[in-house]
Amino acid sequence: MRHERHLHPDEDLEERGSLLASLEGKLVVGQSGGPTAVVNASLAGVIQEAVQHEAITGIYGMRHGVEGLLRADLIDLEAESAETVELLKHTPSAALGSCRHKLSEADYGRILEILRAHGIRYFLYIGGNDSADTSHRLAALAAREDYELRVIGIPKTVDNDLVATDHCPGHPSVARWLATSVRDAGLDTEAIGVVDTVKVIETMGRDTGWITAATALARTHEDAAPHLIYLPERPLRREQLLADVEAVYRRLGRVVITVCEGQKDERGQYFSASTKAVDVDRFGHPQLGGVAAVICDLIATELKIKARFDKPGTIQRVSAALVSPVDVEEAWRVGQAAVAHAVAGATGRMVALRRERDEPYRSAIELVPLEQVANRVRPVPDEFIAPAGHDVTEAYLNYIRPLIGGPLPAYARLRGKAVTRA
Amino acid sequence: MRHERHLHPDEDLEERGSLLASLEGKLVVGQSGGPTAVVNASLAGVIQEAVQHEAITGIYGMRHGVEGLLRADLIDLEAESAETVELLKHTPSAALGSCRHKLSEADYGRILEILRAHGIRYFLYIGGNDSADTSHRLAALAAREDYELRVIGIPKTVDNDLVATDHCPGHPSVARWLATSVRDAGLDTEAIGVVDTVKVIETMGRDTGWITAATALARTHEDAAPHLIYLPERPLRREQLLADVEAVYRRLGRVVITVCEGQKDERGQYFSASTKAVDVDRFGHPQLGGVAAVICDLIATELKIKARFDKPGTIQRVSAALVSPVDVEEAWRVGQAAVAHAVAGATGRMVALRRERDEPYRSAIELVPLEQVANRVRPVPDEFIAPAGHDVTEAYLNYIRPLIGGPLPAYARLRGKAVTRA
Repeated sequence: MRHERHLHPDEDLEERGSLLASLEGKLVVGQSGGPTAVVNASLAGVIQEAVQHEAITGIYGMRHGVEGLLRADLIDLEAESAETVELLKHTPSAALGSCRHKLSEADYGRILEILRAHGIRYFLYIGGNDSADTSHRLAALAAREDYELRVIGIPKTVDNDLVATDHCPGHPSVARWLATSVRDAGLDTEAIGVVDTVKVIETMGRDTGWITAATALARTHEDAAPHLIYLPERPLRREQLLADVEAVYRRLGRVVITVCEGQKDERGQYFSASTKAVDVDRFGHPQLGGVAAVICDLIATELKIKARFDKPGTIQRVSAALVSPVDVEEAWRVGQAAVAHAVAGATGRMVALRRERDEPYRSAIELVPLEQVANRVRPVPDEFIAPAGHDVTEAYLNYIRPLIGGPLPAYARLRGKAVTRA
Repeated sequence: MRHERHLHPDEDLEERGSLLASLEGKLVVGQSGGPTAVVNASLAGVIQEAVQHEAITGIYGMRHGVEGLLRADLIDLEAESAETVELLKHTPSAALGSCRHKLSEADYGRILEILRAHGIRYFLYIGGNDSADTSHRLAALAAREDYELRVIGIPKTVDNDLVATDHCPGHPSVARWLATSVRDAGLDTEAIGVVDTVKVIETMGRDTGWITAATALARTHEDAAPHLIYLPERPLRREQLLADVEAVYRRLGRVVITVCEGQKDERGQYFSASTKAVDVDRFGHPQLGGVAAVICDLIATELKIKARFDKPGTIQRVSAALVSPVDVEEAWRVGQAAVAHAVAGATGRMVALRRERDEPYRSAIELVPLEQVANRVRPVPDEFIAPAGHDVTEAYLNYIRPLIGGPLPAYARLRGKAVTRA
């Protein structure tokens, strides 16, 4: 892993101005939203950079993000050993604890009070678009209240749905996990498809198909799984699904389908969404899940073909065993760069990744306004979705391949020379 | 990986007698039942041993087990390169193709005809208790028909439910996969349990809890997941489940449950079993799955707590990424030993694993009558199940630990020194 200290020359003038003005104070960092395999690598990057700056007089962690910050539930990250911080790079989930907490106007005021009371001048928040919104609002309030606070967002989401960044730390690892696991599960169906004919693998991704698309990396030969890949960017008519399944079944005698938890049908409705009040989170997103079960039932009922599903659920997003080494390195780097930029004067920005080249892969850090990222969602673009609506394109594969960190391990494939004479 | 040639001195007298009589002929090997991460290692063991015996005049593979054999759909395994065979050791699923085919009386006769026509004198079948029954019946028929045929069963099942063997190749790898994945998924809940409170992880295992039990290896500290482990050896009353969940929830504010697909309730009924005819396989086993969804619904309805489930499905049994190195080595060895014993005269036997010591772990090969294994199921014994019915015992952990091949990688855990003054 390269650990270059990072400060890019392309900050705007306001930031260049601030370069001169050193701001002394404590730093607080939090983790928000769904955990990932590498969000602790970002935390390690923050801590390992922060300890090197004299302007930073303390490094605090929020317990469970802003939910803990609201209660002043903070921990002293300088009390952690260097070994622990280094090991964070390879520890999945969110070591500080995470949350999905939508702050009220009063909450923002309360947070500013707490920051002020603790002498905190650096606010770093690792998360997705909800978190970018939180950070943006806090930065705006601090400016209005004339409290000098440097606010930097650090991107993190397996969903890969943030705008203004080539990709999101966390996503390449779930992509590698799914490429590997769907390849194996596909070989399983290839072997036992004579009885377990149709397999539906439900992926995460909410309303975007980035995670589902990555299952295309599982393919190692023409007839390899997955045979049908459905992205929520395209509504899926039940008749089309059944026709697609039947066509593959007639050709190969088996079918492996990957589908996103947020897939919608011809009426624009989720294939299945719980309507229980307990299942709607505090941002109002309905709790998804169940599409694979619904599709299996549809196939069994309409086509009289046995269908089962795998739903790896949270395991896919947080598994440390199959992380992308590119992802670990970039996750660390966005954390590190966030601190370097904040110390240099940046605020109200998110650290983004810009792809510089594919082979060998190289990315650079840039800063984008938090406002641009807040609450916006980047769907899989048209050029990445095959016209038939059940596959990805070569352009997509060129996008994702460099991110997962090298090819999957080689497997044996029997040539299978038939024995002809008896 | 040690590749000792293996022939044990403890065959019975009948076999010792046969040691002198070399039997010349072809060998056929097949794979049956659910694929695993290491069943191809057993195939590699068979091929790599068979090529060393002059008595073996050809090495054939059945395509999709006895289903292919019935059609004389055989491939010539000597036509595969040494590199391909070597790579089989690290290739998941069943490279020959698998099946779940219950043979009729007429089928056995047909198979004997095909074996005779091809000059096949060695029949090796890699599978579980259904396959042991198939092999046993074929051996009996060959004896009645006075056709000298050496029939050896090679154990394979992730379920670990075969009698007369310490454990079954394939199981240690699913145990390692679940230990690793449930640990990660448990850390996910630990981080985001403030909103995603209850997680149910559904494992395979059919009617025995061996696979579910292995999730106990995920625990790294006292309050770590899984908090409740339910094995189908104990019926689970709905009231008990809800009381267990509530108790953990009150103590920790989050709950991770692991439960077997074949869990039964207070009435001895599966928590959920499909009753669709299309979902009953040819051995009459009902298609399981759905228990996690039912439990989530029960918890949400009765306790008003949000519950979601992960169901890794076939991914758990076939993932090559987290195989146990002990398992790969033993899977190879049972394949290798099966050939060595068959050439030496054994027939009607299954190659079994006997544990010789725990630390360092060492196992030996022994032969057991196929008849003893056929159609029998070994449940998790009482001494491995905690009296409360929602955990395993230390005796179980001592049984499973040596099999998964070394401890899981270390993770960072923050000591979390609280910031007290403002």
